[in-house]
Amino acid sequence: MAAQPTETLNAQLMDGTAVARRIVERTAARAAALTERTGATPCLATVLVGEDPASVTYVRMKRNRCEKAGIRSLHVPLPAGTTTEELVAKLTELSADPEVHGILLQHPCGEHIDERAAFEAIAPEKDVDGVTMRSFAAMGFALPGFASCTPGGIMRLLDAYDVDPTGKRAVVVGRSAILGKPVGMMLLARDATVTYCHSRTQDLSSLVREADILVAAVGRPEFIRGADIKPGAVVIDAGYNAGNVGDVEFAAAAERASLITPVPGGVGPMTIAVLLEQTLDAAERQLGAASA
Amino acid sequence: MAAQPTETLNAQLMDGTAVARRIVERTAARAAALTERTGATPCLATVLVGEDPASVTYVRMKRNRCEKAGIRSLHVPLPAGTTTEELVAKLTELSADPEVHGILLQHPCGEHIDERAAFEAIAPEKDVDGVTMRSFAAMGFALPGFASCTPGGIMRLLDAYDVDPTGKRAVVVGRSAILGKPVGMMLLARDATVTYCHSRTQDLSSLVREADILVAAVGRPEFIRGADIKPGAVVIDAGYNAGNVGDVEFAAAAERASLITPVPGGVGPMTIAVLLEQTLDAAERQLGAASA
Repeated sequence: MAAQPTETLNAQLMDGTAVARRIVERTAARAAALTERTGATPCLATVLVGEDPASVTYVRMKRNRCEKAGIRSLHVPLPAGTTTEELVAKLTELSADPEVHGILLQHPCGEHIDERAAFEAIAPEKDVDGVTMRSFAAMGFALPGFASCTPGGIMRLLDAYDVDPTGKRAVVVGRSAILGKPVGMMLLARDATVTYCHSRTQDLSSLVREADILVAAVGRPEFIRGADIKPGAVVIDAGYNAGNVGDVEFAAAAERASLITPVPGGVGPMTIAVLLEQTLDAAERQLGAASA
Repeated sequence: MAAQPTETLNAQLMDGTAVARRIVERTAARAAALTERTGATPCLATVLVGEDPASVTYVRMKRNRCEKAGIRSLHVPLPAGTTTEELVAKLTELSADPEVHGILLQHPCGEHIDERAAFEAIAPEKDVDGVTMRSFAAMGFALPGFASCTPGGIMRLLDAYDVDPTGKRAVVVGRSAILGKPVGMMLLARDATVTYCHSRTQDLSSLVREADILVAAVGRPEFIRGADIKPGAVVIDAGYNAGNVGDVEFAAAAERASLITPVPGGVGPMTIAVLLEQTLDAAERQLGAASA
């Protein structure tokens, strides 16, 4: 027989859609059980300032998923001209409302809003989107608390594919408050050796080449070159750019990685699944009816 | 003339004692001015559970420095058998006391105390030791707030020696809640490319060799080998082990580094200076008499 050509290493896809579906199914079962036990329906308040089309779409998508999972979504649309004070007042009111168990403030809220002040008006026990300073510190210190949904989804996806971060070199490209920074903290809590890269990083390629686990979270299409992926690496592409393009050169990266998330269908569905699951966590705790 | 022998590269010492003295002098001047303007004396409450000799010494040292800087120290010694609830109650009381502007809880407090619960009982505006979750998140997000004192002192020392972290490879060895984690966040906020290493890190030597700025914070004597220091690196030794030994092999490291902190006399004095300065920041704000 003739020698076989060397096989191209082809990565396995990390199927976020399928993993997310299982999480949502379990969440729906918990929601039904909770409603049956308590008579109360778990409720996520979705707060939207203005009518930015992308934000309107995101909120509609999240609300649809809630309804399908047996979670009531209380929509709170506010006019584009809402002030920080008015937004804080509304979030404070929702934080005190016993019929609301989780609060999602869709962001960005617009230039004129002090977003940090708004986030901090969300009660920690209702911060199911993981945006408050307390939630960030909980991720940093590995304490009980809600994860930022995308980082939380990434960790769940790693678990679903039996990726143990212990002792691995994890490289996070991007340092936003709700993605890069918290996912790095969560990987560190799971004993990875974590490097944060960003716009001021020099020689990014050489750092990417060292990554056993790469998390790309920059929001620039195909910013990470496939040729820089370490053979056998796990590649998490949290980017989502126009035209269904991620932050990683997918085809070239998939030749070298062992596991890789597609865009779409990778990280995206996990984010919403974690939002729903954390809303149930919050509802169970607040209704005093957590499953044993 | 005969050729001169190649000169050994000798690092400049980062004189924490001198830099700290300048900070304390400025703080003392501000304290005097504040007292003259308001009639009130800035006050740091020092809470100590039990009589661990090292803790007793640390608290006494901090109180002495306070007095010399014109800051009153209100000492609150509690018996070794104090419960978490009693400690939380005392910290809550001090948080509400208008004559107390800053609170230091000396730790470790003992195995039986839930230290996190205790820290969180400190009002954020009095957390001059930078131990609360809110203070950590403020460091993570580069928001206004109090720094953990040792990380804050390290950043001040870098500034004093004109070390700009932008674009530099910073390697932090150690990931404690009050040292490794926050100093990494502060370096990241200053645009360094930050890698967190720890007990589960593999091939630590090769990571140390890449560090333009190395922060050693593990508490193991001479754990970092001098031979691994990158020529020209800035070496911050935040370790303090028995016999005045740091976490870095000092002599060998000093041959390669451009700047290095001695132990003692490097990071240690900076920690107390930042504690005093932040107590003044807190007092000025609470007394409504901040200098323009």
